[in-house]
Amino acid sequence: MNENKISNRSLVTPPSFIRGILKVTENEEVISFAGGLPNPISFPKEALKESTQRVIDTFGSKVFQYASTAGLLPLREGIAARLNEMYEMDITAEEILITTGSQQALDLIGKVLINQDDAVIVEEPGYLGAIQAFSQYQPHFLPIPLENDGMDIRELEQTLKENRVKFAYLVPNYQNPSGVTYSDEKRKEILALARKYDCILVEDDPYGELSFDGKPRGYISAHDLEGSILLGTFSKTVTPGMRLGFMIVRDAKLRKYINTAKEAADLHSNIFSQYIIWDYMMHNPIEAHIAQIRNLYKAQCQTMLSAMAEYFPKEVTFTKPAGGMFIWATLPKGQSAMKLFEKAKAEKVAFVPGNPFYTDGREANTLRLNYTNSSHEMIEEGIIRIGKILTT
Amino acid sequence: MNENKISNRSLVTPPSFIRGILKVTENEEVISFAGGLPNPISFPKEALKESTQRVIDTFGSKVFQYASTAGLLPLREGIAARLNEMYEMDITAEEILITTGSQQALDLIGKVLINQDDAVIVEEPGYLGAIQAFSQYQPHFLPIPLENDGMDIRELEQTLKENRVKFAYLVPNYQNPSGVTYSDEKRKEILALARKYDCILVEDDPYGELSFDGKPRGYISAHDLEGSILLGTFSKTVTPGMRLGFMIVRDAKLRKYINTAKEAADLHSNIFSQYIIWDYMMHNPIEAHIAQIRNLYKAQCQTMLSAMAEYFPKEVTFTKPAGGMFIWATLPKGQSAMKLFEKAKAEKVAFVPGNPFYTDGREANTLRLNYTNSSHEMIEEGIIRIGKILTT
Repeated sequence: MNENKISNRSLVTPPSFIRGILKVTENEEVISFAGGLPNPISFPKEALKESTQRVIDTFGSKVFQYASTAGLLPLREGIAARLNEMYEMDITAEEILITTGSQQALDLIGKVLINQDDAVIVEEPGYLGAIQAFSQYQPHFLPIPLENDGMDIRELEQTLKENRVKFAYLVPNYQNPSGVTYSDEKRKEILALARKYDCILVEDDPYGELSFDGKPRGYISAHDLEGSILLGTFSKTVTPGMRLGFMIVRDAKLRKYINTAKEAADLHSNIFSQYIIWDYMMHNPIEAHIAQIRNLYKAQCQTMLSAMAEYFPKEVTFTKPAGGMFIWATLPKGQSAMKLFEKAKAEKVAFVPGNPFYTDGREANTLRLNYTNSSHEMIEEGIIRIGKILTT
Repeated sequence: MNENKISNRSLVTPPSFIRGILKVTENEEVISFAGGLPNPISFPKEALKESTQRVIDTFGSKVFQYASTAGLLPLREGIAARLNEMYEMDITAEEILITTGSQQALDLIGKVLINQDDAVIVEEPGYLGAIQAFSQYQPHFLPIPLENDGMDIRELEQTLKENRVKFAYLVPNYQNPSGVTYSDEKRKEILALARKYDCILVEDDPYGELSFDGKPRGYISAHDLEGSILLGTFSKTVTPGMRLGFMIVRDAKLRKYINTAKEAADLHSNIFSQYIIWDYMMHNPIEAHIAQIRNLYKAQCQTMLSAMAEYFPKEVTFTKPAGGMFIWATLPKGQSAMKLFEKAKAEKVAFVPGNPFYTDGREANTLRLNYTNSSHEMIEEGIIRIGKILTT
């Protein structure tokens, strides 16, 4: 088909770099730190199986019929109750919209808020799923460099001062790809700046419950929700396969537009799965389940960090995550992570070169390493292989 | 939140008229012909329950993990095999993309093909879910009047001649809202015109398997797929709650863009449900199941048509569907279906006034009646009530 039939929107949307990378990892022999898959222990198989039975037996046809766009009310009430308890928030079920994974929330946000060339702030490096989703609506990206405790506040204020920014997207806890967590001080400053410059704060928190110290950090605007959109998901704590996430939007007018966009996007999210997740939450000790995931990831992360400290040359720096699924490494200036990736491929070990996490698609000297899906032995062996390449 | 923060795209997207209408029908006493819900007998509850067990026991974590954007390969192979057999087509699994209901397919088509002000042909009256999805991308709608055997061919050719049309969207079988089915002759003419004017044909076939005579009519471009996009769904034959539909796109380049848009929209559709639907197809006599739905709807439709013939004044005309879920009635010129709706509300009977099925949002003298979700007694009683209003 002639390319002139394709919308400009689609012509400028980058296909996922990672999906390409992942092809390499299909080879069984390859040790892959490239993906971002939760460890299968995080799927409570038997409990979910019981829930599927129970919801069919209890609700019958309702779990198979069309449903409301906003989502299953009891599930939304359960989410509100849990967040209110964990983070001392005061959200209501009405302010929650169930989405087909957080990815859909990102698409809806771009759709409802971005006019072509609107200024949008993202982290640098930033989550590539968000960069991809927003790109479709052709914004003007304003990347703010990440430091070890969050966005560079000076840059952020300068950028907000000089531009009419539609919204700022950030991942405050154990960010993807960097593993960085925002300090309490920067959280206060960012919230103040967002309010001062009337910039919508879009906070994505897929990893918040995976804090290694078990201490929940929560959302920057948890206690000042006006003008913010908060995202959450069940993908990292129960199952990503059911594609269930949620948005918290206090502003009623904005919520109405998002609801209409959601309706046009898929009418509503899978209601059978919404019943299952809700039933699972009601009948199982989800906190104990999450603690188990948290402890596994903490140990895997520690193994990778120790191996990197031992086998990587000193010039290679890397983050020390307090939770989540990723470590971010930086090679000496001028070195290409893509070239390293090619060499690593030959040694049967994979990671994600930093390139797709920058809106300018630069040739990066950074890389993302995932530790949640490999045994301790494989983590050590994989890091040894990369270390060998780096030291020769 | 200030409206100037909302994208133009969202400002021009109509919220669903029907969702509003449906509020009326929440009242138990109201006889509703307004919805478009499949009859619950179409949900094979027990078989689906068995399938949930089997796929969890057989595939374990795989059914809960992230999956590929295009969808579960065995499911796509099953869809291809079934369509190839039913309609003597020659599609491959590779040409099929699983979507989160057909609604998502409509959104992806608008996203990937429509630039603002692009000319898009729709049926008049047309499916409002499509009008809503496409509206977001701000096309110039070119509605082609529907006759009892399909689009007005003269109007269609004139329109194709005078405009550079990006694509034409139509529902060839038991159309929503009209219940109209395209004649073999018009199918040939439309295919020829689409090819002559290089216009992409988007064919949506949610009701194709619900033909009252059991004879499958299939897609207009079934044997000339280049330059066409075909849609299908499990919503009317197995369950709408799982939100699973599919797109058939032969053109590899177009498929690549749609796949990227799908990835940005929700990464992939619910994989647990994809396994369930596939397992259901493999282990159950789906044809017998569909025949049961078909026969129920045929009888319900007959009851409504007979009642309309008996209780509606002669000046009110209506379609005689050969399948599907809807009858379309036309009041004498100048009469308002919306006013009729208000009076009907008082008599505790509901339907959908024609307004939202026209891209110009006109005050229509037409209405859509759904017969799949009411008992024969309720169908007769509801038509009697509407008839009374029409005759007084």
